[in-house]
Amino acid sequence: MIRKLLVANRGEIAVRIIRACRELGIESVAVYSEADKDSLHAQLADQAVCIGPGPSTESYLNMESIISATMTTGADAIHPGFGFLSENARFAQICEKCGIIFVGPPSSVIRSLGNKQEARNTMEAAGVPVIPGTKGAVLDIDAGKKEADRIGYPVIIKAALGGGGKGMRTAFSPEEFEKAFLTAKKEAQMAFGDGTMYIEHFVENPRHIEFQILADQQGNVIHLGERDCSIQRNHQKMIEESPSAAVSDKLRRKMGKAAVKAAKAAHYVNAGTIEFLLEKDENFYFMEMNTRIQVEHPVTEWVTGMDLVKEQIRIASGLPLQVSQKDVHVQGHAIECRINAENPEKNFRPSPGTISDLHFPGGQGIRVDTGIYSGYTVPPYYDSMLAKLIVHGSTREEAIAKMKSALGEVVIQGVDTNIDYQFEILSHPDFQSGNFNVGFLSTHEIGGVKVNEI
Amino acid sequence: MIRKLLVANRGEIAVRIIRACRELGIESVAVYSEADKDSLHAQLADQAVCIGPGPSTESYLNMESIISATMTTGADAIHPGFGFLSENARFAQICEKCGIIFVGPPSSVIRSLGNKQEARNTMEAAGVPVIPGTKGAVLDIDAGKKEADRIGYPVIIKAALGGGGKGMRTAFSPEEFEKAFLTAKKEAQMAFGDGTMYIEHFVENPRHIEFQILADQQGNVIHLGERDCSIQRNHQKMIEESPSAAVSDKLRRKMGKAAVKAAKAAHYVNAGTIEFLLEKDENFYFMEMNTRIQVEHPVTEWVTGMDLVKEQIRIASGLPLQVSQKDVHVQGHAIECRINAENPEKNFRPSPGTISDLHFPGGQGIRVDTGIYSGYTVPPYYDSMLAKLIVHGSTREEAIAKMKSALGEVVIQGVDTNIDYQFEILSHPDFQSGNFNVGFLSTHEIGGVKVNEI
Repeated sequence: MIRKLLVANRGEIAVRIIRACRELGIESVAVYSEADKDSLHAQLADQAVCIGPGPSTESYLNMESIISATMTTGADAIHPGFGFLSENARFAQICEKCGIIFVGPPSSVIRSLGNKQEARNTMEAAGVPVIPGTKGAVLDIDAGKKEADRIGYPVIIKAALGGGGKGMRTAFSPEEFEKAFLTAKKEAQMAFGDGTMYIEHFVENPRHIEFQILADQQGNVIHLGERDCSIQRNHQKMIEESPSAAVSDKLRRKMGKAAVKAAKAAHYVNAGTIEFLLEKDENFYFMEMNTRIQVEHPVTEWVTGMDLVKEQIRIASGLPLQVSQKDVHVQGHAIECRINAENPEKNFRPSPGTISDLHFPGGQGIRVDTGIYSGYTVPPYYDSMLAKLIVHGSTREEAIAKMKSALGEVVIQGVDTNIDYQFEILSHPDFQSGNFNVGFLSTHEIGGVKVNEI
Repeated sequence: MIRKLLVANRGEIAVRIIRACRELGIESVAVYSEADKDSLHAQLADQAVCIGPGPSTESYLNMESIISATMTTGADAIHPGFGFLSENARFAQICEKCGIIFVGPPSSVIRSLGNKQEARNTMEAAGVPVIPGTKGAVLDIDAGKKEADRIGYPVIIKAALGGGGKGMRTAFSPEEFEKAFLTAKKEAQMAFGDGTMYIEHFVENPRHIEFQILADQQGNVIHLGERDCSIQRNHQKMIEESPSAAVSDKLRRKMGKAAVKAAKAAHYVNAGTIEFLLEKDENFYFMEMNTRIQVEHPVTEWVTGMDLVKEQIRIASGLPLQVSQKDVHVQGHAIECRINAENPEKNFRPSPGTISDLHFPGGQGIRVDTGIYSGYTVPPYYDSMLAKLIVHGSTREEAIAKMKSALGEVVIQGVDTNIDYQFEILSHPDFQSGNFNVGFLSTHEIGGVKVNEI
């Protein structure tokens, strides 16, 4: 078993991991930047080491400092949390070379899954549904039309070098194809000096459905059901829930099987997440696999009764999973709202500052994960998430009512927050109906705010 | 459904009830004493009414003020919480006469169960095990010996007018009977001027095991498993857990059936608790029924996934139970520690004062129910409980580790607390083994403190 764990992260996830260590009787080492010297995670750990100045590149992304802190404190393992170095194959590899247990998959797995084309090929070969598309470049209109017919409309025509929406057009029928192809190609040539085009099936108004995976070193792989993370702003998740209102028991079994197949195909080890796009008619497609613990892991913990961070540590210690797929039961409904220091009315501008007054709700069905406290100063260097508010109810309806009540109780003075905005989302009939997709925030005006996707 | 609910209580339980109202869309009215004007419950409710000066008799026990606040605010129901007026049959009766829904059983049921002899007779008639004893006074040694043989040794010989341990002796065998009887009788005559004696089976080193009951107005009664509340100081519970380490599945079914039978015999309605003494060899005896929500209800909520306060409100509104006995499953293990403002090293002397710094743990498996906040002043008038810390783990061992970690994280500055004392109890091998009884605190020195039972 891991004896002493260095937590290479900050904020609520560092606190989360340190608590798991305390409960498991594992010594914990926090690392902190100069800007984080008064942070909760540094106070809560058994030991704390300063690893550099505020900017991430000089501290939480500084591999040398972190490896050195691990060596100096005699820690035998590193938990990378999420963000920062958590999906950095080189960092995982350095750990491996230094004989430090990296709480995550092997560096080779991180590398393979980080390469989107390689990941796609692996999944396709394993029989996991991927978004249908052309294998190579599409040379002309006739070839393109044939491919589009094969793939199925609607299709999206994409420049090989594209980005930011340039050189990209959708065609909903064969009649639209020619114009869309030519426009996209011309735009690509203008923008990138290259008109090489690809065609992919266009997934219309999908839901973001992801499956939590646990895989041990003995080769056992299970899934813990899905999370629906469709409420996003510019691909930043804001609200996550489990189970999804869009996933039937039958679809859960089908997607769950695909998720386990995907993890096995990738030779995955530890906790990971398979992200799918779910289209109408219950079609779903592999998008990517995240090789770390996710921000939204608590909703899965609550409906399954499992502790994912402890499982990560056990797996990294070489222990086999204690549960098999048939032992996993999803009970009730959990929702997470990310409480950010940002101003939705000013285009979600981050709002660092000092928390002058703070009150979080508690009681039945309420969980708060946070690294802030009254008097804490939110540094300007890192992401704006202050806390995660997680609720559990026996039904989705009850969970929504509980979250609304809980959001209404939160007091955070001194910085702007998105609490009112979150409350308005939860109050919206389209959210409550469960019938929404990733376009929700850009197609609904919420409390006077409409998100412009970039 | 109840439309507007007045909460006739204070502190964490008032906050707990107000939160349930918010989630159910019921308007809430708080009442508060002058000493509680800055309290969380008064701030959190939709409306708040001052009902008198600090001392309970002039506010929280003042029936006229509370009924008047109910009438004035147009509330149609009163939730009494625990303590104060919660088991006062006269108060429940006044509510009935005024057409106010009392969230609890009918006044007649409170009255019957409040009379210990009547409750005992009801239970005995229904076939619920009660502590074997004499029906009437025991006149002399020979009659006493016969009764003791019938009841079974050990027996306790008690003065009819006794109290405080006076006029009370135990006999563990027939040989000890005569001396014990004569000594007790003589002592009773000296102390109370009356030598009338009773004999009861002496329950040796019992565990306090209680069953949570839910009963609706339609006559459905279910139990939600047991709570073990054996860690007590002078009959004040300190730590409660569910399930009990002493209760097997078979015993749970047996005791659960007896508990349901007891509730039915009492024509019980709403949430209630059957308290049993559990002796060695799995013998158990009805002790009393509490006709209210208990302090320790969260441990049951966590292992069953139910919300007891919402159930109370639904039942009081006339709704039938939504679950039947077969739907109730106990999952994992929950423990509650009562965090009190008191100094264990000074004989648990209460410690009112101002909370200058406050930090509670959060995260996976942690629940905090409290009415305090940073800057809050603990008034001297009420009981010393500041907060309830509740944890849930997949096993008892995990729950204990989690509670120790959580207690270690709590920061409460400005008043003395029993946090370190609780931590020491949880660390004790005899607590961890699960093999303990109500005498635990008086037979163990915990962190240098030994409780003298009064």
